[in-house]
Amino acid sequence: MIIIMSNEVTDGQIDAVTAKLQKMGLDANISRGVERTVIGAIGDEQKLDKEALQALPGVEEVIRVMKPYKIVARSYHKSDTVVDIGGVKLGGNQVQVIAGPCSVETQPQMDAAADAVAAAGCKLMRGGAFKPRTSPYSFQGTGVEGLEMFRNAAQRYNLPIVTELMDARMLDTFLEHKVDVIQIGTRNMQNFDLLKEVGRTHVPVILKRGMSATISEWLMAAEYIAAGGNHNIIFCERGVRSFETYYRNMLDVTAIAVLKKETHLPVIVDPSHAGGKAWMVPALSRAALAAGADGLLVEMHPTPCEAWCDADQALSPEQLNTLMGELRGIAQVIGREIA
Amino acid sequence: MIIIMSNEVTDGQIDAVTAKLQKMGLDANISRGVERTVIGAIGDEQKLDKEALQALPGVEEVIRVMKPYKIVARSYHKSDTVVDIGGVKLGGNQVQVIAGPCSVETQPQMDAAADAVAAAGCKLMRGGAFKPRTSPYSFQGTGVEGLEMFRNAAQRYNLPIVTELMDARMLDTFLEHKVDVIQIGTRNMQNFDLLKEVGRTHVPVILKRGMSATISEWLMAAEYIAAGGNHNIIFCERGVRSFETYYRNMLDVTAIAVLKKETHLPVIVDPSHAGGKAWMVPALSRAALAAGADGLLVEMHPTPCEAWCDADQALSPEQLNTLMGELRGIAQVIGREIA
Amino acid sequence: MIIIMSNEVTDGQIDAVTAKLQKMGLDANISRGVERTVIGAIGDEQKLDKEALQALPGVEEVIRVMKPYKIVARSYHKSDTVVDIGGVKLGGNQVQVIAGPCSVETQPQMDAAADAVAAAGCKLMRGGAFKPRTSPYSFQGTGVEGLEMFRNAAQRYNLPIVTELMDARMLDTFLEHKVDVIQIGTRNMQNFDLLKEVGRTHVPVILKRGMSATISEWLMAAEYIAAGGNHNIIFCERGVRSFETYYRNMLDVTAIAVLKKETHLPVIVDPSHAGGKAWMVPALSRAALAAGADGLLVEMHPTPCEAWCDADQALSPEQLNTLMGELRGIAQVIGREIA
Amino acid sequence: MIIIMSNEVTDGQIDAVTAKLQKMGLDANISRGVERTVIGAIGDEQKLDKEALQALPGVEEVIRVMKPYKIVARSYHKSDTVVDIGGVKLGGNQVQVIAGPCSVETQPQMDAAADAVAAAGCKLMRGGAFKPRTSPYSFQGTGVEGLEMFRNAAQRYNLPIVTELMDARMLDTFLEHKVDVIQIGTRNMQNFDLLKEVGRTHVPVILKRGMSATISEWLMAAEYIAAGGNHNIIFCERGVRSFETYYRNMLDVTAIAVLKKETHLPVIVDPSHAGGKAWMVPALSRAALAAGADGLLVEMHPTPCEAWCDADQALSPEQLNTLMGELRGIAQVIGREIA
Repeated sequence: MIIIMSNEVTDGQIDAVTAKLQKMGLDANISRGVERTVIGAIGDEQKLDKEALQALPGVEEVIRVMKPYKIVARSYHKSDTVVDIGGVKLGGNQVQVIAGPCSVETQPQMDAAADAVAAAGCKLMRGGAFKPRTSPYSFQGTGVEGLEMFRNAAQRYNLPIVTELMDARMLDTFLEHKVDVIQIGTRNMQNFDLLKEVGRTHVPVILKRGMSATISEWLMAAEYIAAGGNHNIIFCERGVRSFETYYRNMLDVTAIAVLKKETHLPVIVDPSHAGGKAWMVPALSRAALAAGADGLLVEMHPTPCEAWCDADQALSPEQLNTLMGELRGIAQVIGREIA
Repeated sequence: MIIIMSNEVTDGQIDAVTAKLQKMGLDANISRGVERTVIGAIGDEQKLDKEALQALPGVEEVIRVMKPYKIVARSYHKSDTVVDIGGVKLGGNQVQVIAGPCSVETQPQMDAAADAVAAAGCKLMRGGAFKPRTSPYSFQGTGVEGLEMFRNAAQRYNLPIVTELMDARMLDTFLEHKVDVIQIGTRNMQNFDLLKEVGRTHVPVILKRGMSATISEWLMAAEYIAAGGNHNIIFCERGVRSFETYYRNMLDVTAIAVLKKETHLPVIVDPSHAGGKAWMVPALSRAALAAGADGLLVEMHPTPCEAWCDADQALSPEQLNTLMGELRGIAQVIGREIA
Repeated sequence: MIIIMSNEVTDGQIDAVTAKLQKMGLDANISRGVERTVIGAIGDEQKLDKEALQALPGVEEVIRVMKPYKIVARSYHKSDTVVDIGGVKLGGNQVQVIAGPCSVETQPQMDAAADAVAAAGCKLMRGGAFKPRTSPYSFQGTGVEGLEMFRNAAQRYNLPIVTELMDARMLDTFLEHKVDVIQIGTRNMQNFDLLKEVGRTHVPVILKRGMSATISEWLMAAEYIAAGGNHNIIFCERGVRSFETYYRNMLDVTAIAVLKKETHLPVIVDPSHAGGKAWMVPALSRAALAAGADGLLVEMHPTPCEAWCDADQALSPEQLNTLMGELRGIAQVIGREIA
Repeated sequence: MIIIMSNEVTDGQIDAVTAKLQKMGLDANISRGVERTVIGAIGDEQKLDKEALQALPGVEEVIRVMKPYKIVARSYHKSDTVVDIGGVKLGGNQVQVIAGPCSVETQPQMDAAADAVAAAGCKLMRGGAFKPRTSPYSFQGTGVEGLEMFRNAAQRYNLPIVTELMDARMLDTFLEHKVDVIQIGTRNMQNFDLLKEVGRTHVPVILKRGMSATISEWLMAAEYIAAGGNHNIIFCERGVRSFETYYRNMLDVTAIAVLKKETHLPVIVDPSHAGGKAWMVPALSRAALAAGADGLLVEMHPTPCEAWCDADQALSPEQLNTLMGELRGIAQVIGREIA
């Protein structure tokens, strides 16, 4: 860390900082400039407590030099991590489009959805059995029964299933039902107890970005999972909160490029929750892929107008099919493959 | 709800919307303007599904007329709710300053903190035993042992205790230790399973605003607790995420005035987490009180520089004492009382 | 407009709103719902004053039904507008990449830049002679002399020139130097006097989005230019302010899709100012094109490390060349052409 | 400045940075840590170009140690600056409430407004003759004629007048009409040519914060005015853009405390444009004063419902009078005086 002292610093204050650093096991490099004295802490930054240094008299600012994340960092593992989901690869050269309805409703709905997912050439299927809803009076999901309907529908095509876990107490049920990918939603990105629990399994995890999480906080949330031993983590950008009211969230396309630089783990994008309208999904999907995303998480419903949840943001089977064609073309141009 | 049709709407599309409304049990009022046709849904708006209407052909926009929250709304209960915390009143005419350290560290630290809280004239004490930390490698709290140290320290002055619950599985432990106020942190504002659980108790709850939650989402999160039967809810504004980097969060002082209009429940402010620096706390505390807040949640540490967490944002005992004097003066001017 | 009355509205208050509407030349459609009365204003919404209605007793909310923009709206002109810049077409099927340095420095620098722009196959050149700088002590541009160096360099390849106008008093100079495209920067998007002035010319205008302008405000800013008679307007998304600190601005890729729906005018993207780092530019450029942008505004400097301004965000000539190859591939997939 | 090198830096890259610093006239302090090498630039930071350093190979990040503002900084002038406006003092111990209508409409309206301003005990009057409006089709102000009506009304009570300048070409007219305080609006905070022009006069300037300007950018905008020789600058916080839609802008009350620390110049608050609703104004005004503001800029209209602009945010004369009473009470508690 670098400690910038205020312009009226005394020698005693500099000595106190040096002493504090030594107590934490680091050395100090003191650089007296024309207008400011700057102290560099030499040693393992992980041992340092930024706030404790900041609270010392005469300290104006403390700046971290090292990135706070370790296992998820690109520097920890240079090459791209490819996550294996029941034999389906995601990451590296392989792009995957995960499609399916917002929520699991009925067995016929899920069967029709699985038909459409497979027909479009997608290799993974999504669907929510437990739904986080802003209002306690809205439909809260079909629960465990929903998991079963989902599994029934998907297994006819050997589609691994992706579904959201909201409560650590439900994890065992997810494991019993052999959920292939556990999704952690935007509202739970910093539900640290939940992250620790999924970190103890080896099930692949899709970690959605928090509503207004910085990229650094997001990487640290993944670090909670990785620190538990589960390195099968997939980041999912889904738009962030902004001042713009025309659409639901602002898709942060730059975050894709940043994550590809900072981490070795795959990055996918959810264009449906970002825009919030079906007509925005093709443009956002193409942009995400062109920017370097390793996959997409797209809402598709056999009959969008009848959906029990977010009816206006689901693609129809035909729209999904058309989109897949466009995406294959772009993938080819940038040297990647869609399963 | 009001359904605004697109400018090229057909009669068939208008009929379809009317039919959908009738199926949901409502009537339609059709207003054909010069450039737009607008359909008003007459009946109980709670029966309507906004997204399903939005997905119909020819519909441009659907606008909600009623507020989505019920029990927490000012219209449900006209007068101010006063929450009773072990005999200490919060709300109505009564302003309370809840002070204490960021985290429970040791018994001597908590004893000294309790001494200072009582000496400053505060009637409630705060302290975190379970800490939500951005990094998995940071101090995560003293846990159950911390709860005991906290209780030991506080009971010498009969100070009810306020502490954060992060995991529903820990609720029974909180109830056994007779925690007086359960705090739900900013990262868990939309942890709906946790909200439902505390909604089943009758313990007063401080519900912090999510990092970037709208006021409406915040009211709906409280509605989750209220819908379970627990109406002892206190809102806590703690600053929101913004583009400004000088301080930690942007304190939304306007939210105080808005909440006093929209809800009958009390509203307090956490100036410590908002600003993130001890020197900002007095100005923010005075502003919050002057704007109409029913209380404050302030970090105070017997020896700030030694704090294990957020050392640079805690007031010293002397600073707390001085602040209490200023706050008493402002309370008097606006006709309120600080215990 | 739709006027939603409060739940305790009186007949007198409803009558007052009706009377006010009639005074403004409109009729009222009164819809008495179960919990709310809603009044629809029938007639020309442009005649209405939203705030004046909102100030009437008993009015809870006033909602606009019509879009406030006219000439720039897609409904005003259904097909895509193609802007002709000295014979170079931008819009419709034709994508253009406008490249060049952040600022005009010297004649040799501009000559080398023009060589590189032409070599990469770009048909338009950018460069700033008047620079808006955050600090009064930073380099403020080479001014009129810069315009001349720019023209000298560009005319060897018949490249039309794009440069920023900051002050209405400098417009005549721009016209004398036959600037081909006037750029209005992000800080001047709502400098209404400047917009009115360029609206009186027929020179094509690139209107950058304000730092935190909503899409609606941006369209209204363009309406200022169009209302003066100049319909040669090109929108330029350049990222908006956000809470994320990893990069300079958050590129709003969704805005491209929204604008293509709302307006007939072309939309380009400035990936250089969005990300703020040269290494982010290729990913953002590809994403913008894939999302439907009609062009790009890219910073390229013959020797980036030596640039007098924003040295870390300029591409080198080689990088521009490589990027153009990628973009041609994507353009082909989505059925468009790069000159 | 501090230059943090990447973890794979070479000696050659370190030498290149050192050479670049020496060329700019500074020395280098090289600190080789366990995981990172950090170079401190010793000498006058103003001579350095941050972006040029950032563009060098091996450089990961460049951090500024000094504040970029000089004349407006508290370190330049330790004691509070008191601005003298035609004999009325603003700053130091003296708090001023500047009241008046959003826009100048007619002579009778301005006369009635001046009566109310004086009756409430305010010593300064506001009113807009030139209005920045989002739509080109909205009322654009009464212009020069408005200035005259304003002056006529105000001089009966010797009230100095505050009015907005939008265009540098109108400055001479403002000087001829002896406008007492020139207001620079939020949309023009970074209209650098306009700032330079008012910097050449000695007329006090109210500089409103840009819609989403950081505090540092705002201080730099003031530095543009100060660098021209005009040090009579008053900052005006008016709320910033946020994701919250309940109100117009989010009042940044923390900015008051920050500015009082960073600059010696006075800081006032505009609660009317922040909240956007008259009923929010009293709470926001009290909060601003309690947080340390040196004044307020409040909209008051003799008959709010009839206002030509922002009718729903103006206080009535009675409401202004009541507010002044509350503010006097708070001022007394914190040891300040309202004229």
